[in-house]
Amino acid sequence: MPTSPTPCPPTRPVTAVVLDRAVLLRHLYELAACGRTPHGGVTRLAWSAEDVAARAMIADWLGASGISALVDAAGNLIAELPGKHAGLAPLAVGSHLDTVVDGGLLDGAYGTVAAFQIVAALAAGGQHLRHPLRAVAWANEEGVAAPPFTGSRTAAGLPVDLDAIGQDGRNLGQRLAGGGGDPGSLAAAAWGPLAGYLELHIEQGPVLDRLGIPIGVVTGITGMRRGWVRFEGQANHAGTTPMHLRADALVAAAHTVLAVERLATDGPATVATAGVIEAHPGNTNVIPGQSALSFDVRGMDDPALDAALSRLCSEIERIAHLTGTTAVTSTDFSSRAVPTDPVLRSAVADAATQLGYPSTALASGAGHDAQHLARLGPIGMIFVPSVGGVSHHPAERTDPGHLVAGAEVLLATIRLADERLDP
Amino acid sequence: MPTSPTPCPPTRPVTAVVLDRAVLLRHLYELAACGRTPHGGVTRLAWSAEDVAARAMIADWLGASGISALVDAAGNLIAELPGKHAGLAPLAVGSHLDTVVDGGLLDGAYGTVAAFQIVAALAAGGQHLRHPLRAVAWANEEGVAAPPFTGSRTAAGLPVDLDAIGQDGRNLGQRLAGGGGDPGSLAAAAWGPLAGYLELHIEQGPVLDRLGIPIGVVTGITGMRRGWVRFEGQANHAGTTPMHLRADALVAAAHTVLAVERLATDGPATVATAGVIEAHPGNTNVIPGQSALSFDVRGMDDPALDAALSRLCSEIERIAHLTGTTAVTSTDFSSRAVPTDPVLRSAVADAATQLGYPSTALASGAGHDAQHLARLGPIGMIFVPSVGGVSHHPAERTDPGHLVAGAEVLLATIRLADERLDP
Repeated sequence: MPTSPTPCPPTRPVTAVVLDRAVLLRHLYELAACGRTPHGGVTRLAWSAEDVAARAMIADWLGASGISALVDAAGNLIAELPGKHAGLAPLAVGSHLDTVVDGGLLDGAYGTVAAFQIVAALAAGGQHLRHPLRAVAWANEEGVAAPPFTGSRTAAGLPVDLDAIGQDGRNLGQRLAGGGGDPGSLAAAAWGPLAGYLELHIEQGPVLDRLGIPIGVVTGITGMRRGWVRFEGQANHAGTTPMHLRADALVAAAHTVLAVERLATDGPATVATAGVIEAHPGNTNVIPGQSALSFDVRGMDDPALDAALSRLCSEIERIAHLTGTTAVTSTDFSSRAVPTDPVLRSAVADAATQLGYPSTALASGAGHDAQHLARLGPIGMIFVPSVGGVSHHPAERTDPGHLVAGAEVLLATIRLADERLDP
Repeated sequence: MPTSPTPCPPTRPVTAVVLDRAVLLRHLYELAACGRTPHGGVTRLAWSAEDVAARAMIADWLGASGISALVDAAGNLIAELPGKHAGLAPLAVGSHLDTVVDGGLLDGAYGTVAAFQIVAALAAGGQHLRHPLRAVAWANEEGVAAPPFTGSRTAAGLPVDLDAIGQDGRNLGQRLAGGGGDPGSLAAAAWGPLAGYLELHIEQGPVLDRLGIPIGVVTGITGMRRGWVRFEGQANHAGTTPMHLRADALVAAAHTVLAVERLATDGPATVATAGVIEAHPGNTNVIPGQSALSFDVRGMDDPALDAALSRLCSEIERIAHLTGTTAVTSTDFSSRAVPTDPVLRSAVADAATQLGYPSTALASGAGHDAQHLARLGPIGMIFVPSVGGVSHHPAERTDPGHLVAGAEVLLATIRLADERLDP
């Protein structure tokens, strides 16, 4: 009579810690109560009572994991799972909790909830990584009533303008102090080097949704050149001024709107937009004597962007000559492209493959906290689809399956990064 | 010793009546006192106290000529020199006395002063023409606070909207009654047929001034099509929406501004203008989801204008398809071209030649009372240069030599027309 085999003792492999999908989705919806608006959106401005309540809710969820969270001088919420290998810099993961006015419930909150849930799950499972794993909810990414990115800029050791005044007359320092921060201690809140930084976020654009691909491997955050072109012509009677004696500032602006578009459709920019146009005096029977238009040009190749902008300026000169107007072009804002790290990009792509999720590479045309963290170490970002590309709106939505996929890919990426960084 | 020849008795040929140049210029400057503004311009709105005072001043100048003036139900000032041949319809000559707010001292006033001075001079000289010669100062040509052309429309038997409300809440009938008119008797103030109508006016455009030619033989008053094109696209994030997934309403509008311009630069219109443009939401980092632009297209060939507008509509359809937007085009206002009469055009050109003034033919892109008088008989118009093309502005100015030339040509044209019409 054969003996029955001795049952193996249950092993608990490292990969056994999985995210509880129901908890992820429940946390997202519970968090949305902090600032819920009548339209079904969320208004949770940085350092507001709603923002403070959201931080407390996240900290509370860490509860049984044994990890406790702290709020730093900038109002960032931070929780760290110690690493197994002494001397390794932390691997950080997070996003932000603040929203725009009547925004959606996913932008920022999604990546934050996933980051803290992962740290809690690993802690609860006793699964320490080689690196310390630091979850973070960045303060004031949106910059609704103050300049944006206060939390990530503080961590990166970048200056913060405490005197910047919002629409209600309060300055940034007052807001920060009112939301649990300490304006006088920002410098001391700067972080040291990171092994890496990972951020999970909704795409806020239509690419993944249109393609039907759940995971975006972010190649980087595009550089931006933003500014104005102003034309001065001659206002005149639309009936009595012959075409050859005109200096029509709106005709000049119309040529320029199309020239801006061509920077992307027939040039090196990823996207190029004229969002604002004005023509004066603005009467149906008067030739416009003055016009202005904005340009917003973004791409991952800064030198190519600069060359394209130079060509735009030459084209504007030609347009001014053609139309008998004079042109003044100014760049108000310029930011360099921030590429993600190749090791972390591969980790994201490999994690998606391991889990059976299709992925594709794409650039982020919107800014993210990650762009500042790049000063402290390699960065990586994961996108999930935004239905219809809608964001910053109560209708912002992502398929729950995609939300789960993104968080699972984030966890798997953390594991791969932990192995591949500082090998 | 030869006898000295018997001196001929002095004859006074018909051509001996000449305009007193000094009186013409003095009258113009004196009339400008009725409504003079601090900026050196004139505000003399139709039927205002200033307008009534200007009519009284003109009537007063007729004084010694023996001709008296009357004010009709529309507020038109009329003075008639009887003709020598019974049964001939009158030859009318005039312009308007009202101005825009802070306008110049020539628009309308110039042709009116010249017309009444000519009637007074002929009357004082006892020089009756074959036709009755009727000088007229039209009421409310400008239509600042009411629809325009009340006086000439009344004479032409065209309807007048007495209930049209101005910005101050008064309607046209109330204005008219307050300025010496009789709203209840407009229909009875319609004129019978005219042998012809002549109007002397500043060009209000730059053509004659640029050419250095003192006399413009007006070929007609252009027809006009005025309306709006509205595009509906999709507002989206300027950073996250790829170019191929956009429906940019401002790009569509920019293409259309250039298409409107081509109606004149590469089409049958004399002039074509987009004077107003709007794009919403109007943020530098948002792709415009809605746009609108006005069009104002004028020319002397109505069927060609209509065909060109049809082609514009087709082009707008193509632009909408290209940009992923939808377009709605509407025509709010349409007027037919009113050509001047060939006999009167020749009379103007011949008069200029007789007097040694260079002349050139040009169309009027602005509306004039003459366009309504064309319902009663052949019309002719004479333009003199506007320095820099400026009009409806305190800086409106014409070289005094050109003002004199225009009035002299008007008198000579009246004589030629009197001979050539109803021969």
